[in-house]
Amino acid sequence: MPTYRLLIEYDGTRFSGWQMQPNQPTVQDAIEQALATALRARPPLVGSGRTDAGVHARGQVAHFRIDRVIDPFRLRRSLNGLLPSDVVVLAVEAAPDTFHARFDARRRRYRYYVSTAPRALEHRTRVHLRPVPNFGAMRRATPDLLGTHDFDAFCRVRSATEDRVCTVEVARWIYEARPGDAYFEIVANRFLHGMVRTIVGTLLEIGRGLRPSDDLGRILATRDRREAGETAPAHGLVLEAVQYDATR
Amino acid sequence: MPTYRLLIEYDGTRFSGWQMQPNQPTVQDAIEQALATALRARPPLVGSGRTDAGVHARGQVAHFRIDRVIDPFRLRRSLNGLLPSDVVVLAVEAAPDTFHARFDARRRRYRYYVSTAPRALEHRTRVHLRPVPNFGAMRRATPDLLGTHDFDAFCRVRSATEDRVCTVEVARWIYEARPGDAYFEIVANRFLHGMVRTIVGTLLEIGRGLRPSDDLGRILATRDRREAGETAPAHGLVLEAVQYDATR
Repeated sequence: MPTYRLLIEYDGTRFSGWQMQPNQPTVQDAIEQALATALRARPPLVGSGRTDAGVHARGQVAHFRIDRVIDPFRLRRSLNGLLPSDVVVLAVEAAPDTFHARFDARRRRYRYYVSTAPRALEHRTRVHLRPVPNFGAMRRATPDLLGTHDFDAFCRVRSATEDRVCTVEVARWIYEARPGDAYFEIVANRFLHGMVRTIVGTLLEIGRGLRPSDDLGRILATRDRREAGETAPAHGLVLEAVQYDATR
Repeated sequence: MPTYRLLIEYDGTRFSGWQMQPNQPTVQDAIEQALATALRARPPLVGSGRTDAGVHARGQVAHFRIDRVIDPFRLRRSLNGLLPSDVVVLAVEAAPDTFHARFDARRRRYRYYVSTAPRALEHRTRVHLRPVPNFGAMRRATPDLLGTHDFDAFCRVRSATEDRVCTVEVARWIYEARPGDAYFEIVANRFLHGMVRTIVGTLLEIGRGLRPSDDLGRILATRDRREAGETAPAHGLVLEAVQYDATR
């Protein structure tokens, strides 16, 4: 069946996350409603993964299938005319019939934005850290995340059967151009529920001197959620990109 | 009397502008309330000028006077602890006793942010232009604003007695790093009510081919508000900076 891939940006502030829930505003539901109007059909929309309430995206990917061929450019224009201003469809493109936004995703990139001074004009998308943490200690801690590990200890809600092994390719703190602004970037093949925010929360505890900077390896080895730090607030987190095999 | 100067950043989205109004949330009121708690006194706060409902600031300046000497650093910290996250006091500093945030301001710098594609993560601070205007025509139009003119035609609400002569030093369109993003920057000794947004609205009509690119000079000469274009939306506008004489 003709399959279309959407690239989506959203401000997650007023949404109860990506995934549809009864009587809650979700991004998935907003787009499905716009699709229903634009297509006069209501194909289910499948995202690359959920994002929690308040988490943003600059590069969420989703697909839907429909029993006819549509014009991607016109659909994008219609959707953006119908969607509220905090959800934007950046691109619509035809995909192979077997494309699946979740199963075919090879890599996800998240960034968690912080600042050491309050930012009124970015209060929805950047977390103010007070007092200022020790970024040196937080930077020394990140290499422990690299490679293939069982991330059990950083998983917020766990189903009994799920495999919790993830391969982290990038984990680093980047200073931005404006003094006091920085983000933590992490790239992995997959992420568990609450994983980035729990990693960031633990890094911030290292930055506040509450843990040694070599604590992450120990926590991973315990596979015990109680060993990790608090979950950092949702509004600093952005799903930046989802990567797929180019050859599909 | 000891006088203190505040540098203020705010997201104007949920405020009915800077200036206090009964039963409306205003930035001035939010800061005066925080000052009252921090100082256990309620000195009136005088801003460099009003901003309309929905207009933002990265560099609003205000002053207050109080009958005792206070610690500027501690006051800034207290205020930011008390203020909502969409208002931030960037700096508090002691000023000369005669300093007046409005009367002593020599120059104001505004920017109006636009994009040719919708931006979900900046939907509160950037106006999506659709269809894409002719930036070349809009750039050719701006030099007509430079110099000293009676800006009557670009003033939204006029009091009978007011002098409406302004001296514009900078008026230009700047392309930003991300393709499709741009801002219109204007610097003048003073601005009339609604002036920047009416200028931008008129420029956008030039960009849409509804007016010739040399229309601004003609409109200025008429001194008639009906000759200018529509007022552009508030949320693209940011008061970036207010400049004072260095020697005070």
